[in-house]
Amino acid sequence: MKKYSMVYNEIKNMIISKQLPSGSKAPSVRNAARLYGVSTTTVQNAYFDLCADGYLIAKAKSGYFVSDINKIDEQEKKSVQKPDCNIKYDLMGGTADSTAFDFTLWQRYIKSALRQRERLLSYSEPKGEYDLRLAISGYIREKRNITASPDRIIIGAGVGTLLETLCSLIDEKSTVSFPNKSFVQGMEIFADNAFEVHTRDKDAHIIYVSPSHMTRWGDVMPIKRRLELVEYSAKNSSLVIEDDYENEFLYNVKPTPSLYALGKGNIIYIGSFSAMLLPGIRISFMVLTEELEERLNINSSRYAQTASKTEQIALCQYIRDGHIKSQTRKIRRLYSAKAKEFAELLREKFPKAEIEIGENTLQIIMKLNFTADISALKKNGIAVFVKSKTENETTLVLSPSAIPQSELTDAAEALKAAILS
Amino acid sequence: MKKYSMVYNEIKNMIISKQLPSGSKAPSVRNAARLYGVSTTTVQNAYFDLCADGYLIAKAKSGYFVSDINKIDEQEKKSVQKPDCNIKYDLMGGTADSTAFDFTLWQRYIKSALRQRERLLSYSEPKGEYDLRLAISGYIREKRNITASPDRIIIGAGVGTLLETLCSLIDEKSTVSFPNKSFVQGMEIFADNAFEVHTRDKDAHIIYVSPSHMTRWGDVMPIKRRLELVEYSAKNSSLVIEDDYENEFLYNVKPTPSLYALGKGNIIYIGSFSAMLLPGIRISFMVLTEELEERLNINSSRYAQTASKTEQIALCQYIRDGHIKSQTRKIRRLYSAKAKEFAELLREKFPKAEIEIGENTLQIIMKLNFTADISALKKNGIAVFVKSKTENETTLVLSPSAIPQSELTDAAEALKAAILS
Repeated sequence: MKKYSMVYNEIKNMIISKQLPSGSKAPSVRNAARLYGVSTTTVQNAYFDLCADGYLIAKAKSGYFVSDINKIDEQEKKSVQKPDCNIKYDLMGGTADSTAFDFTLWQRYIKSALRQRERLLSYSEPKGEYDLRLAISGYIREKRNITASPDRIIIGAGVGTLLETLCSLIDEKSTVSFPNKSFVQGMEIFADNAFEVHTRDKDAHIIYVSPSHMTRWGDVMPIKRRLELVEYSAKNSSLVIEDDYENEFLYNVKPTPSLYALGKGNIIYIGSFSAMLLPGIRISFMVLTEELEERLNINSSRYAQTASKTEQIALCQYIRDGHIKSQTRKIRRLYSAKAKEFAELLREKFPKAEIEIGENTLQIIMKLNFTADISALKKNGIAVFVKSKTENETTLVLSPSAIPQSELTDAAEALKAAILS
Repeated sequence: MKKYSMVYNEIKNMIISKQLPSGSKAPSVRNAARLYGVSTTTVQNAYFDLCADGYLIAKAKSGYFVSDINKIDEQEKKSVQKPDCNIKYDLMGGTADSTAFDFTLWQRYIKSALRQRERLLSYSEPKGEYDLRLAISGYIREKRNITASPDRIIIGAGVGTLLETLCSLIDEKSTVSFPNKSFVQGMEIFADNAFEVHTRDKDAHIIYVSPSHMTRWGDVMPIKRRLELVEYSAKNSSLVIEDDYENEFLYNVKPTPSLYALGKGNIIYIGSFSAMLLPGIRISFMVLTEELEERLNINSSRYAQTASKTEQIALCQYIRDGHIKSQTRKIRRLYSAKAKEFAELLREKFPKAEIEIGENTLQIIMKLNFTADISALKKNGIAVFVKSKTENETTLVLSPSAIPQSELTDAAEALKAAILS
């Protein structure tokens, strides 16, 4: 990531500073690769994005030329958001570690999906591709002890899309409770759909929980509370929405049963593949109750599938061939090892801080006994989540999952330099 | 399509009829190819889907085996919807013509997108990839005379998703009018979001129109009505949503200006690429008003991009390289030629019927002077849209766009045989 950003920024700066004036030819890909000591692929990628952002223009057979940057209007320039360039160490956990995903393997599955031309010529079923739903049905049976026929399973491009569908299926616009207050997107979707939303513990027709990620620092719902919730739901005929977000990472705690497996029917289960694969692959799924599935079937013509058909076909075969299981193991091991190592590094750099690894092994909570200057972090390209900040205390939530293992030491060092500067 | 279905159905029937009993080995791919006189790819695809649907089980290095079909529960069997197998001639226009799309070219763009690993490691911006929005900005400027900065453009996996976002941006839950009554999905989305929906002509805070596809049979909004609508919107500060659905096909009518280009700011423009590319590629876009864009920027953290990042990157380069323009020309020529040819064929087969090509050159309206037996059409695998049916008249809307040119005669013949049987 750094090499790519280096080339991107070097060339961009040369253009802005007019070292490379408008209309001039940029160094050839091969020369730039030699110049910066990087591969031609890296240069190619940087040039590609410089074209996308309007700094360069590709001319067939003659190379790359500097565009007239005065023509890129101010607003456009402003919005060229290149997180890679500004953020050097992303400790928010929003991106993935490039070493964690086998791109070549995934490419093979995409290629194979693209060969299924007949299938690609038609729209997906509203619920999503049947064979992927069948594969997911097997996957959640094995992994989470959830028995659900493929008909009950609905695929969508992200949890938000699934919740919009869910809202449209629930007739009575009733009360929804979000005891985990951090899922703002979900709360707003229900509010937009004319539901009454609150964050009290129960006391609602619908209760939305993510038992494996109850807070930003990854607290896990204890089994006692799970049983209570399931019982409450049965007694009050409340609908529980179980968003099984990040359950894959529960490594150093005992695997906890899904509410769906504990419950007696009034539970909707939501899962996603983005964290296991790539953030840019938008495939999530939802297991409906019998009643809601029937409602969907009756009105199926009003729903259009949102997930890419090619990626659905690819993912189906990827799951069938057992890769999702091995990918889960791999990523869990890697992220957990990194969190441990990073916590150790932080203990060295900040001997006075209280440092703890969150229950789901992804996040580290660091409590400093002074007020840290957050803007210094930003200025140095370090993105963190600030849990709290008082006059004599700052608590940060740090997730090293996006940082390659080889850069953990540098990241900890940079964090120290920025905080103690 | 027919070869694939043939193999799929042959093997499936042999399993159901127990000619191939549970546990037995299915013919090898090579043998089946020889047996049915098709390519191994065709057999491979059919076997792939037979596995997906639970009829076969693939065993590594030993081939395909018949599964215990008693274990496929009834409901699962029921829901194995294989439109290919049941529908022989799709005259509803829901699928695409395989000859219209250059799969190999698209594959090249997808492959190139998959090489951009750095970009695939992070989530898309909520509005979608910046460079794709830049490319779309140029595309609609050239094609529809719409000047919109990429910041105003939002990408989403289908029009439904975009409308959900739009609903969440409009604060006052006001009245929406859908003068084109056929867009039920859109009406229901607004209703779910607590808007009051009606189908009167104007008389609403928001007016939703698709000027290039006002009815199922493709009527186009005349320029006079366009100007009226724009003026009405300005005078009453109504918001007009212009869904430019199928405008690409306006071939034998004069190109009509977009409302957006005619209007003075209070217009939202919606476009999609599914019809030009493949139905399974879910990329649509929406141009917001300044006010709604600002509202989105403020709340951007609550929106997650739904379109596949790989496909966004691929489409961006595809547009930049001019392929969307040539693809539009190609598909327009092809579909229009097919509609003309099919209309001629129908005039031969049904000399007494009134036959007319719809304004947008995609649909044919055929009025028969008797009551046709619609169930006979279904039984013979012919899917049509019935516009009206009375005691002495039946009007069908027929769209031959999904039928390969070489099969138009067969399709017309099959239609005749089914209707006059």
